[in-house]
Amino acid sequence: MGTTEEIASFLTATRAQDIPGEVLALAKRGVIDTLGVAIGAASHPVGDILAKTFPPAGAGDAFLWNGRGKTGTLDAALSNGTLAHTLDFDDGGVALTPMHPSSPVLAAVWALAESRGLSGREILAAYALGVEVECKLASAVSLTHYDHGWHSTAVIGSFGAAAGVGWLLGLSAEQLRTALGIAASMTGGLRANFGTMTKPLHAGLAARNGLMAAQLAQAGWSANQNILETKKGFFEVFQCGEVGELNLGNPFHFQLPGVSIKRFPSCSATHHCIEAMFTLKRDHNLRADQIDAIECRVHAVSYQAVRKEPKVESAEAARFSLHFTMALVLLEGGVELKHFLPETRNRDDVRALMAKVRVAVHPELETLESKNKVFGEVQVRLKDGGVLTQRATQVRGRAPLALTDADVEAKFLGCAEPALGTAKAQALLSALRRVEEQPKIRSLLPAAFGLA
Amino acid sequence: MGTTEEIASFLTATRAQDIPGEVLALAKRGVIDTLGVAIGAASHPVGDILAKTFPPAGAGDAFLWNGRGKTGTLDAALSNGTLAHTLDFDDGGVALTPMHPSSPVLAAVWALAESRGLSGREILAAYALGVEVECKLASAVSLTHYDHGWHSTAVIGSFGAAAGVGWLLGLSAEQLRTALGIAASMTGGLRANFGTMTKPLHAGLAARNGLMAAQLAQAGWSANQNILETKKGFFEVFQCGEVGELNLGNPFHFQLPGVSIKRFPSCSATHHCIEAMFTLKRDHNLRADQIDAIECRVHAVSYQAVRKEPKVESAEAARFSLHFTMALVLLEGGVELKHFLPETRNRDDVRALMAKVRVAVHPELETLESKNKVFGEVQVRLKDGGVLTQRATQVRGRAPLALTDADVEAKFLGCAEPALGTAKAQALLSALRRVEEQPKIRSLLPAAFGLA
Repeated sequence: MGTTEEIASFLTATRAQDIPGEVLALAKRGVIDTLGVAIGAASHPVGDILAKTFPPAGAGDAFLWNGRGKTGTLDAALSNGTLAHTLDFDDGGVALTPMHPSSPVLAAVWALAESRGLSGREILAAYALGVEVECKLASAVSLTHYDHGWHSTAVIGSFGAAAGVGWLLGLSAEQLRTALGIAASMTGGLRANFGTMTKPLHAGLAARNGLMAAQLAQAGWSANQNILETKKGFFEVFQCGEVGELNLGNPFHFQLPGVSIKRFPSCSATHHCIEAMFTLKRDHNLRADQIDAIECRVHAVSYQAVRKEPKVESAEAARFSLHFTMALVLLEGGVELKHFLPETRNRDDVRALMAKVRVAVHPELETLESKNKVFGEVQVRLKDGGVLTQRATQVRGRAPLALTDADVEAKFLGCAEPALGTAKAQALLSALRRVEEQPKIRSLLPAAFGLA
Repeated sequence: MGTTEEIASFLTATRAQDIPGEVLALAKRGVIDTLGVAIGAASHPVGDILAKTFPPAGAGDAFLWNGRGKTGTLDAALSNGTLAHTLDFDDGGVALTPMHPSSPVLAAVWALAESRGLSGREILAAYALGVEVECKLASAVSLTHYDHGWHSTAVIGSFGAAAGVGWLLGLSAEQLRTALGIAASMTGGLRANFGTMTKPLHAGLAARNGLMAAQLAQAGWSANQNILETKKGFFEVFQCGEVGELNLGNPFHFQLPGVSIKRFPSCSATHHCIEAMFTLKRDHNLRADQIDAIECRVHAVSYQAVRKEPKVESAEAARFSLHFTMALVLLEGGVELKHFLPETRNRDDVRALMAKVRVAVHPELETLESKNKVFGEVQVRLKDGGVLTQRATQVRGRAPLALTDADVEAKFLGCAEPALGTAKAQALLSALRRVEEQPKIRSLLPAAFGLA
């Protein structure tokens, strides 16, 4: 069976009640986390630029996650997917091919569910299935896909969104294959745009692509029925290598290896070195004024993603800067949302320390194959001549250091409270804790923003 | 100077009055031809599916070229680009890398111009400049781009639309570079979807991508400023090979080698063999009942695009069928729009003749390099044992057999009359003959459909 058919068969064969309770519980954490990081970006210009540039022509039926009212379903998927990825704080990093699974899928299924008055239970199932398709694809494709320059969140996210929406629409197997066929012709997204607003846009585009593809398939559009595996189809054109069976739902990727919920609002490629620097600081009581030079050693693929120069002209750029995040750990003792504002980015002590940081590929991490060895290493040269070297092989947020439910809720409140205020953020969290009991999720977010 | 900057500089340096009159005259032919083939698709389901699936939320400001009223600017660009490419009758085949230049650009600039109340002169200039950027890119990228599986109309079309709209919006050089950066992350489109409705959708997506990218750039979005040539940027990721200087406007591609206006409503990859079969039929008074077998020998890249089996389950599939077009030449003496309807596709004599056709790669046309040798060859084995072989090196519509103005107008009327009736089609043609004198093109098409 080809991969396209494998996905369609899985989706048509799976009813909401077939999804294990453990998966739905993990999916609920994902919903809370994704909405939190999106609301955390409410005041970021991206949402306002999109809304201002493409205003709804009339009364929309899907709510914008920055609280700016309603718009059309496709436009909401675009904006909300973008908002969810804007802080680079959404979940990710689960498969060998790095990607952010939730933003594209949740933005697409939520917009459709709002416009159709669907329930929290339906959203949760559709989201879990979309993430499953997406993460299994990311696990099955070769790392050459990412290494070639593709942003997998954009590219593979389009299929996840198409799968989630397609399931929610109750598409037939043939329609699902058509939806994947259309999505394959809409998808794209270059890593060369990392560090700009176009990176979060990728997640929004993926959400819109998947939603549009599934809706067109339902309406009678036509496309190649074997787009993933066909000659010069998706796998071949997008450098995915040989793709074997996906083993969808057996177990769900949410169960094993698990979707990682991010602890730090910066590119995952910076996280191992952040952890290593936390360890150095704690174990050696390290202070900035003791330091002569810092070298961050990462995997070759991570090296491609991060900034090479100690320059953070925007919050987007800062999220890809080891120079900046190293300075934060040392000077602020943390890497938190508030640190990415200009007042910290432009501080003299931050800039002075950033200038001492160098980024390099670790000699053991030069090949694509070595991506299985996940670590980052920081070497600090001290003014007194000493040298400290620290390797981190684990990061908070990723198994076995997965965030607890309490961690996820604290992160949610940290993101949502500045936008909503404490009371409304708490109320939304309470509602999301029982999202599967909501008969219609349509009023959930408008209420959180005081607009329902 | 990098290619991204080269394009931005050309666009900011060029005013409407700098464009040679000859270019504007040729562009006007392109406008007439593109609108004609789009209106010719008015009754095709693609337009209605798009309009029904994504209805405007309110009063739109851009008119749908199938006469179904107004919708939002982005949606109009999407639908109109799709309609213009639906019959596979829009212009193309001008550079080594085959593509359809006009559909993406005209759909984008026309939608914007309608929504802003712009003049025919402004549209004509923006369209000419968008096509120039697009065709020079298509001429500069390696054929490996297309051979790899990319549909260049979709991929490169997004940049053409961004360039045309960006110029129309009066973007700065920096904004234009941003627009190209955003477009590069939106673009895609697989040839594996040829023969389905997703192929024309590619042109619509390219139009929408370019329009959206230019509008976002104007509104303050950010993207890589050197997206085309940067490491792991567009040229590298999309297999474009080494790209030299584009030589924009020096002369315009409209002047040399010229944009080819299609004579037959089928994939360009079928045209040389169609011409060869016309010659055989004429020179030998060839009849279907004399024929035992037909072999069509084409370039390896054309072979990828056309149908291998004698099966035409839809008009979309028939446009990629040498089996079908050979049967049309022999049985109908022409390859015209009306022949792609089910009554001809399903005829017993057509099917019987199709079964005798075989498609092969010509031994001299197996390599990408040989694409410079443009020809198709047809060999007919007769029942009496005779063998006729005919090679065609030229096709009508492409220089030196370029269509005359009268040919272009006759094609326009052939497309538009079934949708508009003779009087309105003639009136629209008269208005388009003076498109540069129209102070606002907003009412032109609504009037043609009797809706203004």
